[in-house]
Amino acid sequence: MHDIRVGTEDVFKRQIELASRNYKLFQDHGVRAFNAMGAIGSGKTLLILRLAERLKEKGVRVGAIAGDVAGDDDFRRFSDAGLVAANLNTGDDCHLDAHRVGHALESFPLGDVDVLFIENVGNLVCPADFPLGTEGDLVVISVTEGDDMVRKHPKMFAQTDVLAVNKVDLASFVGVDPMALVDDYRRLNPHGKVVLTDAKSGRGADELLAALGL
Amino acid sequence: MHDIRVGTEDVFKRQIELASRNYKLFQDHGVRAFNAMGAIGSGKTLLILRLAERLKEKGVRVGAIAGDVAGDDDFRRFSDAGLVAANLNTGDDCHLDAHRVGHALESFPLGDVDVLFIENVGNLVCPADFPLGTEGDLVVISVTEGDDMVRKHPKMFAQTDVLAVNKVDLASFVGVDPMALVDDYRRLNPHGKVVLTDAKSGRGADELLAALGL
Repeated sequence: MHDIRVGTEDVFKRQIELASRNYKLFQDHGVRAFNAMGAIGSGKTLLILRLAERLKEKGVRVGAIAGDVAGDDDFRRFSDAGLVAANLNTGDDCHLDAHRVGHALESFPLGDVDVLFIENVGNLVCPADFPLGTEGDLVVISVTEGDDMVRKHPKMFAQTDVLAVNKVDLASFVGVDPMALVDDYRRLNPHGKVVLTDAKSGRGADELLAALGL
Repeated sequence: MHDIRVGTEDVFKRQIELASRNYKLFQDHGVRAFNAMGAIGSGKTLLILRLAERLKEKGVRVGAIAGDVAGDDDFRRFSDAGLVAANLNTGDDCHLDAHRVGHALESFPLGDVDVLFIENVGNLVCPADFPLGTEGDLVVISVTEGDDMVRKHPKMFAQTDVLAVNKVDLASFVGVDPMALVDDYRRLNPHGKVVLTDAKSGRGADELLAALGL
């Protein structure tokens, strides 16, 4: 992202200030918030829905903010599933930032949720540079994206708390070994947690909740 | 991409100037250049390789510039397949721009190729704002990315010359109807050409060459 270099370090600093403000807001409301990132079509929305189903069974109230360049497809999926949801369109921007999220939170009923998933714009590059003020990051990749996915994006994965390698049930069809992705991730980020998931079947959802500390 | 708003309209203008310079360079060398865009894992590299195989059979000399944030996986695939290839890492940037491509062209043997594919960074948002000076755009999407892919990115698809809906052989496994993507595209871009492809099997490659006028 070269945009954040234009205005010198002030832009970085401002982003961190705004993220800290969101962080405090989450804390004040006792909300555990997560920034869900990943490329387009990696399966972020469905995976969040699977986590939400399980959390609901435990009596945990789940909210979601759907970040997209345009449209409200993901918002409607969250909303139809009974989540407290908001839609956040960025127009041309390729990522959410703390400022936009802060505005969305102004009208979001934080008192009605215990866990909030903020689904970032589908993009594996730009969101890495913009902290939102969440307590944790979840990055979702799909085996259909190829086995060079992780090593092509060292920055994103080096700072990821939890990685979900999704659509593992398709691995044999696309000829990709999920463990190659896991190995690349461990090299970049020895302390990160990684879970193999298949959002369609629900596989790995419980392990993913545990990895997120939920 | 909000970076290009920071420096007022000068940045836009500068991009177009630099793109025009590349365009002229391609014309001077009789090179037909294409900007291949699409999300991570959509299958851009393999599809370009399939097109190159067919062009080679016709005696057409093919080159490729592999744009990525990091690494040289795609460059090596091009190079191993015998294409005149160059690697272009953007560091943190989520897209190529005319300036970077211009520098890559300084050392690229344009006299040795007839057709040049410039594979942009895997990202369906940012590259839409940065013309490279190519004569045409090819956007590759994969059915594995979901059936809401096109309508989530109106800007990219409204200006696309040719769309390849790739990995169609996986459509039934992921439960996505390729024709829904085609319909969304036609609504956004009635004059664009669209081809169903499967880079692994080579399906649709001849039709894609025809759509590109090659």
